[in-house]
Amino acid sequence: MSKKLIFGHKNPDTDTIASAIAYSYLKNKLGEETEAVALGEPNGETQFALDYFKVSAPRVVTTVANETNEVILVDHNEKQQSVSDIEEVRVREVIDHHRIANFETADPLYYRAEPVGCTATILNKLYKENGVDIPKDMAGLMLSAIISDSLLFKSPTCTEEDVTAAKELAEIAEVDPEIYGLDMLKAGADLSGKTIEELLSIDSKQFEMGDNLVQVAQINTVDPNELLEQESEIKQVISSIITDKNLNLYVLMITNILTNDSVIMSLGDRVDAVNQAFNVTLENDKVTLPGVVSRKKQIVPQLTDVLA
Amino acid sequence: MSKKLIFGHKNPDTDTIASAIAYSYLKNKLGEETEAVALGEPNGETQFALDYFKVSAPRVVTTVANETNEVILVDHNEKQQSVSDIEEVRVREVIDHHRIANFETADPLYYRAEPVGCTATILNKLYKENGVDIPKDMAGLMLSAIISDSLLFKSPTCTEEDVTAAKELAEIAEVDPEIYGLDMLKAGADLSGKTIEELLSIDSKQFEMGDNLVQVAQINTVDPNELLEQESEIKQVISSIITDKNLNLYVLMITNILTNDSVIMSLGDRVDAVNQAFNVTLENDKVTLPGVVSRKKQIVPQLTDVLA
Repeated sequence: MSKKLIFGHKNPDTDTIASAIAYSYLKNKLGEETEAVALGEPNGETQFALDYFKVSAPRVVTTVANETNEVILVDHNEKQQSVSDIEEVRVREVIDHHRIANFETADPLYYRAEPVGCTATILNKLYKENGVDIPKDMAGLMLSAIISDSLLFKSPTCTEEDVTAAKELAEIAEVDPEIYGLDMLKAGADLSGKTIEELLSIDSKQFEMGDNLVQVAQINTVDPNELLEQESEIKQVISSIITDKNLNLYVLMITNILTNDSVIMSLGDRVDAVNQAFNVTLENDKVTLPGVVSRKKQIVPQLTDVLA
Repeated sequence: MSKKLIFGHKNPDTDTIASAIAYSYLKNKLGEETEAVALGEPNGETQFALDYFKVSAPRVVTTVANETNEVILVDHNEKQQSVSDIEEVRVREVIDHHRIANFETADPLYYRAEPVGCTATILNKLYKENGVDIPKDMAGLMLSAIISDSLLFKSPTCTEEDVTAAKELAEIAEVDPEIYGLDMLKAGADLSGKTIEELLSIDSKQFEMGDNLVQVAQINTVDPNELLEQESEIKQVISSIITDKNLNLYVLMITNILTNDSVIMSLGDRVDAVNQAFNVTLENDKVTLPGVVSRKKQIVPQLTDVLA
């Protein structure tokens, strides 16, 4: 039996990286041989958390079938968000907090999804259910994941369970979540020195909605206007991504982490779906959606309703 | 908010009925308003268990969207095994022990699947996790489900967890699992007075494997030869089901619950897949597979490998 690889989605965010590491630690404690890997380098926010808690970034892989038959997915299930050769290996487990779509197995598996704000909140339960103590560094990473996914508990995806888990983990990690959290989010919102291509790939996910292929990217920032100074360059890059990937719709969320609003920039054949889903009219391919910060809860279901 | 309906698959078996009832009991104890319903009448085995533990059979429904917006699935997830209007309601939870296929949601949900032999084994855990005591009648039904799905712990799908759960439940239910279990299985294997159409619909599930629509039915018996006296009539009925449902393959398992072997009878355009999957040659559309009792573990994955 080869070592099971544990990984999250492409364009990894803090929850994906932290949950792969924290679940691998738990599984290894339970006597299984696993390794956390990642489908890309950590972003600035995740690197801040890894550095703070002195944990190495997971090894980056582009394929897995060359080294294992069995994998465990965290923080995602949809094929197009996973490793390129996912169909060649057996998925033994999934720990996730997203909708289930474009996912299929030939055999029974362990699948644990809960409608909470963060995969790490579920992991916090799994540690308890299995009677394994959470060490300080793992607690720190799991707390970072919850802060990241919930935008410091302000996202509508954030549940009571996430807040409670974060409190428990902050105690073990010996940090003040508000102070540590804002520092971490700011590290992630530091966009300096990045090309537009890099900015758009920090946190970008693809979805199948009916017959439509839709990409939804999100950039967190403390100053949307600074980013919008490069509006025409951003649109050029988005247009070429649409052509390259044969997308029907591209939606970019530029999220202000201080005010919790998002500017939506959208291009593609099906921009009509954005107007219909949010009852707005894009002007110059843009519109501001007040109070919208969550791709999962405030963008994807609404677009799916229109397009699927 | 309308009452959530909880139900298992079409052609309900003991696990599907028992798990719907036992999970509804648990959810109601936790303060949610739910009702267990069923997509068909209980079979002879299930009715034996319901009578023994003095529980009423769930109300039979053919659609759900006319009375609720929200449902909880137990013991299945594949659309074609579920209620006909499943796409019109929101699936809030799934508790299951099968592969995941042909299942998709627009929103996050609670999904708890484990690779154990029976849904009731997972429910036994959920009662504990939620700190709810299992009453005698619920324990009896859950025990019946485990005995049914594991053919009295002899199926290869049966895990250590199922055996342990059954022991705990038998104690609460105050029955000897071996004695009660054989009586229950025999009640299910009593095929007298049933038409061939009824026999074939006792426990029959449909699967999509690649582009193929495959129906796999199972009949438990203590005397396969008695059934095979009506071989030509059975084949006539199967042929008309294939035409009616546009099936590519029909597989009937006639399982001897005393010897734990199955006679496979198979018709349809893709019977070649049966020969290939089990490395056999059907003779007169039949072959005996020694030690094969589990559709889930010993039939479906093998056929899926060939057909998908």
